Amino acid sequence: MKALVHAKIEGLDGLTYREMTEMQPAKGEVRVKLKTSGLNHRDLFVLTRHKTSDPPLILGSDGAGVIDAIGEGVENLQVGDEVIINPGIGWNEKSDAPPQGFEIVGLPGHGTFAEKIVIPAENAVAKPEYLTWEEAGVLSLAALTAYRALITRGRVRPGMKTFIPGIGSGVATFLLQFAKAIGATVFVTSRSADKCQKAIELGADKAINSNEDWGEALKGEKMDLVIECVGAATFNKSLEQLRPGGTIVTFGASAGDDVQFNLRSFFYGQYNLLGSTMGSGEEYKEMLQFIQTHQIRPVIDKMYKLSEFEQAFKRLEDAAQLGKIGFYVNE
Amino acid sequence: MKALVHAKIEGLDGLTYREMTEMQPAKGEVRVKLKTSGLNHRDLFVLTRHKTSDPPLILGSDGAGVIDAIGEGVENLQVGDEVIINPGIGWNEKSDAPPQGFEIVGLPGHGTFAEKIVIPAENAVAKPEYLTWEEAGVLSLAALTAYRALITRGRVRPGMKTFIPGIGSGVATFLLQFAKAIGATVFVTSRSADKCQKAIELGADKAINSNEDWGEALKGEKMDLVIECVGAATFNKSLEQLRPGGTIVTFGASAGDDVQFNLRSFFYGQYNLLGSTMGSGEEYKEMLQFIQTHQIRPVIDKMYKLSEFEQAFKRLEDAAQLGKIGFYVNE
Repeated sequence: MKALVHAKIEGLDGLTYREMTEMQPAKGEVRVKLKTSGLNHRDLFVLTRHKTSDPPLILGSDGAGVIDAIGEGVENLQVGDEVIINPGIGWNEKSDAPPQGFEIVGLPGHGTFAEKIVIPAENAVAKPEYLTWEEAGVLSLAALTAYRALITRGRVRPGMKTFIPGIGSGVATFLLQFAKAIGATVFVTSRSADKCQKAIELGADKAINSNEDWGEALKGEKMDLVIECVGAATFNKSLEQLRPGGTIVTFGASAGDDVQFNLRSFFYGQYNLLGSTMGSGEEYKEMLQFIQTHQIRPVIDKMYKLSEFEQAFKRLEDAAQLGKIGFYVNE
Repeated sequence: MKALVHAKIEGLDGLTYREMTEMQPAKGEVRVKLKTSGLNHRDLFVLTRHKTSDPPLILGSDGAGVIDAIGEGVENLQVGDEVIINPGIGWNEKSDAPPQGFEIVGLPGHGTFAEKIVIPAENAVAKPEYLTWEEAGVLSLAALTAYRALITRGRVRPGMKTFIPGIGSGVATFLLQFAKAIGATVFVTSRSADKCQKAIELGADKAINSNEDWGEALKGEKMDLVIECVGAATFNKSLEQLRPGGTIVTFGASAGDDVQFNLRSFFYGQYNLLGSTMGSGEEYKEMLQFIQTHQIRPVIDKMYKLSEFEQAFKRLEDAAQLGKIGFYVNE
């Protein structure tokens, strides 16, 4: 089968679209013939985290397709079932952190940028019927991350003033859609006037140019909740927008890890800083129920053939997208 | 009346023990003839925060005594009542942050380092009978801060592994006593072997020399809860002791405000960082009920006459104390 594989050389230069051996599902596993898959920031990190001395690795965490083989002992699924992949392996129940041994599809195990993938049966979940294959393929990692960050961790409620700096990414667009579905008032930022415009079309109450003074642009309105996935570049500016007792949830640091802040201002403000990553199987199912109830569809930026991976990765690296970038994996 | 007053010169040099005019309680206020009062780190900060151009200010947030005059409209109190002072003015109900206008006794208004003080009637609370005057006088600010940080914010529960770096201060000794009363397992640190020994006597399960490698000293045991009041000097070491999904509550920064930390490690760890200061009137009453139930007595380091203020302030500045430093205010 054809797959997008990383090996030998760190970074993008180590990626090739090539032939890989098809695997067989073992006990408790299923094999999915994928139709579509989704590109994530995580795939960029994997290019540097996957050791060049390790065996070749198929990238990709998101995907949707049809079950085409079933391992021993799998009862609730059958060949022909249309499924969407929960990329979190080994974290079933909602808890304050994943258990030991938790892994994400696409490192260390093979991922979804291939014609087929073998996964644990519990990670193959019925595809919501109202979603297209394109939408189902790009949904999982970003929507699950957004769900846990905003709903489990941030406990967003109707009327809460919610601030999402950096509206471009897939997760950010889900955050916006989810928060609006719940009835929050949502403020976003972007460097791009075009993305600001699209955010308004998606329901944002206000979209601010990132280069403006945020405090001025918000006219002194303070936020109940900030969902921060940009990192060092915006962390302190985000903190400044919080009302006393407000909450900032952090789950990303694409613009830098190292944060410096004033502890005294933090505790005088009685702020809450909550870390979040991914989510459990329970949250994954809650999220699917939630998007179905509110008929939320992923914002798709652009779909590529898997062989066009260079253009797709470049678009993500340049942060040129609004929403999700996806692949058709069976050409 | 005699009082300890700050004026004109920033810092300790601006402090004098001198005559001040006695005040009359206005509507809704009472006057308390103080027996004892307690010294806090806050009093050190006030020495730099109280503007030298402002009128002279009586310092002090903690105190206990007997009501000796009552303003108009005060119904539940009478002259002769033995009371303890809740130093938080204008924050009655438990909430995620104090309302606008919240103040602490001892800046901007006159404090408890005097023979008498006028305060709002709701801040004069019945003194727990089992406490001595010395114990009642040093209790309030530190015990309320510890209560909110550990119980409201940290949600400590029986069996939780709780870590308290820097066991010397009054707040830290309350944290230790409260956490043990609830049934937590408590680990503390101190630079002083003597304080480590006393912490064990107070019930700590383990006391670590601050200079040791904390991870090694804890033998890899990870903490559910860290209550951090030291600040920059220990913040990252404290974070490292948390289990995934663990919580760190911060309410002090005596050893530095500016903290630098890794955001990615933070959100991968799904940590919670919660700021806390003081507490509401509701929490103050809960705290009094709690210490009564568990018959907790403040750890008193040393009592001074108010005229001996220089020795008392020096002892606090040097962090030589274990527990609370107090004053007899009527000599």
